[in-house]
Amino acid sequence: MSHTFTTDIAIIGAGPTGLFAVFQAGMLGFKCTLIDSLPEIGGQCTALYPQKPIYDIPAYPSITAGELIEKLEQQAMPFNPQFVLGQSVTTYHFDESTKLFTLETSEGLKIAAKAVVVAAGGGAFGPNRPPLKNIEQYEEKSVFYSVRKPESFANKHVVIAGGGDSAVDWANILADIAASVTVVHRRSKFRAHQDSINKMMHLVDDGKISLCTPYQLHSLVGENGQLSDVVVSDLDGNKVELAADVLLPFFGLRMDLGPLKQWPFDISEKGIVVDPLTMETSIKGTYAIGDVASYPNKLKLILCGFSEAAMAVHAIRAQLHPNHTFHFEHSTTKGVPGS
Amino acid sequence: MSHTFTTDIAIIGAGPTGLFAVFQAGMLGFKCTLIDSLPEIGGQCTALYPQKPIYDIPAYPSITAGELIEKLEQQAMPFNPQFVLGQSVTTYHFDESTKLFTLETSEGLKIAAKAVVVAAGGGAFGPNRPPLKNIEQYEEKSVFYSVRKPESFANKHVVIAGGGDSAVDWANILADIAASVTVVHRRSKFRAHQDSINKMMHLVDDGKISLCTPYQLHSLVGENGQLSDVVVSDLDGNKVELAADVLLPFFGLRMDLGPLKQWPFDISEKGIVVDPLTMETSIKGTYAIGDVASYPNKLKLILCGFSEAAMAVHAIRAQLHPNHTFHFEHSTTKGVPGS
Repeated sequence: MSHTFTTDIAIIGAGPTGLFAVFQAGMLGFKCTLIDSLPEIGGQCTALYPQKPIYDIPAYPSITAGELIEKLEQQAMPFNPQFVLGQSVTTYHFDESTKLFTLETSEGLKIAAKAVVVAAGGGAFGPNRPPLKNIEQYEEKSVFYSVRKPESFANKHVVIAGGGDSAVDWANILADIAASVTVVHRRSKFRAHQDSINKMMHLVDDGKISLCTPYQLHSLVGENGQLSDVVVSDLDGNKVELAADVLLPFFGLRMDLGPLKQWPFDISEKGIVVDPLTMETSIKGTYAIGDVASYPNKLKLILCGFSEAAMAVHAIRAQLHPNHTFHFEHSTTKGVPGS
Repeated sequence: MSHTFTTDIAIIGAGPTGLFAVFQAGMLGFKCTLIDSLPEIGGQCTALYPQKPIYDIPAYPSITAGELIEKLEQQAMPFNPQFVLGQSVTTYHFDESTKLFTLETSEGLKIAAKAVVVAAGGGAFGPNRPPLKNIEQYEEKSVFYSVRKPESFANKHVVIAGGGDSAVDWANILADIAASVTVVHRRSKFRAHQDSINKMMHLVDDGKISLCTPYQLHSLVGENGQLSDVVVSDLDGNKVELAADVLLPFFGLRMDLGPLKQWPFDISEKGIVVDPLTMETSIKGTYAIGDVASYPNKLKLILCGFSEAAMAVHAIRAQLHPNHTFHFEHSTTKGVPGS
């Protein structure tokens, strides 16, 4: 029989929003277990851009993503959260008699919780992949959906597909690094910041970027994962072959909830649909906060995720203790453990 | 003719929420004017408790209220807000033809703005004053609605009225300082944190606090603003006279919007009613954020005020530029001026 442990609130995702939820829940007397498929806390802040400065965390004129996570960890630790890292949640079950959710992880761990908060963040979103034959053979070899090291494209012939900010910004950056940059877009108008478009047009005039519009991707030519050409076609089906070492398709993100998509909550293309006043999903007792939560006018800002975390744990308190009048307590009244 | 100056957004209240709104508005390209009746920025954080540590600002395990304001000011300053301090807004007018709001201050200054954000905070709330004859003669002399320096009550006979957290907490604190502490409450049951009530009951057992329940305040005896006795009565009208140097009535807060209450927005007893998705009041183009804003499940937390500030300025952007597609920009993409 596998080991089951119990907690008040199971939080799926140990990024900034999930970490702050631990603190807020702790202030209300709840114990939390944080589960993340990454081996470390911090989500994308730690995994993708720990050194990147962030300017819109309130009262931090500038803070790196790594430092932000450190501070949030310090703030959460007095409440002794349990961390279940490097494991993803595979199944979930609600027992009507015990009123407990049981989550099972990829390592077979079972966690029983009174409430569940999904804070899966940007990790729940993946790139939109163009529907090209055999593209998976080229992915991560010569087709990339994000740029980690721009200098790795030095002296390469780069084809960028897309018309939004990512396409335009990376075209502008790579124009100085790559052997050639060609931007393929199915419309002649770009949907990006006007000043970025202006910059691109200057680089086009200078011969540093080629535009290929209105064209769309048709097929890939190459072998063993290495592209030699990208074939594009216009609206009449006329084809052009572009010599290419690298293809960067930037067609936006699409939600990829992984095993969570089996859960019976309402989802939209923008995320898990929640009540904006409680952050509760369509599954009673299950909440979603941060970038993965979707409601009208939702802003994907970390600072809004913090507020959503507070709203969710207060709603959980009202749900678990419906007959208990809540005496609103400011942190200044009693402080936190150890303060 | 008086001087009128124009701004994008007039923000009433220069506390933490108003200051953060300046930053968020600046990120979207808006200039702000901050108006506050206090002579300094920071609202109650600066005026009432600059040294008090706050534990629930995200990513600050502890920060004093004064330091919080300093950091928020640093974050806002690159966007060059105009400060109109020591002046309250007396009148407001909306001109349908220019689509501008004009606010006039107590000093006769006129400010024309495209949108108004009310961030009047706790400053918009005053104490509930008990309906006792001549109480105003005693206020700030021997009747106080808040405690600034507990040690000023050393060797005084203190009567505390009320049954909530403030009454119980201050009774517990003053039990060690005052000559005597008597708590008058019209019910025998207190509505405060259970552990605070337990503590009070221990102090009652130890003879350090006297309870007078179920009694309510009846009248005040004294002269020249100095109390000598507080008269209380039970439900049958039987009176008891309590010797008292000081009366502390803690009957909660009541909204006192001052001149703002002339404005035609919907208000409830909890504050200015807003749409929780935009923070817009019932006056188009006028928003309320922070403690003064009221919507279902509202949490009066500074961190929620920050999120509300972001939501309000994004809603203002959508309102002022309805045909402009918004390319969502993270602070990491471009940074802020001077970074």
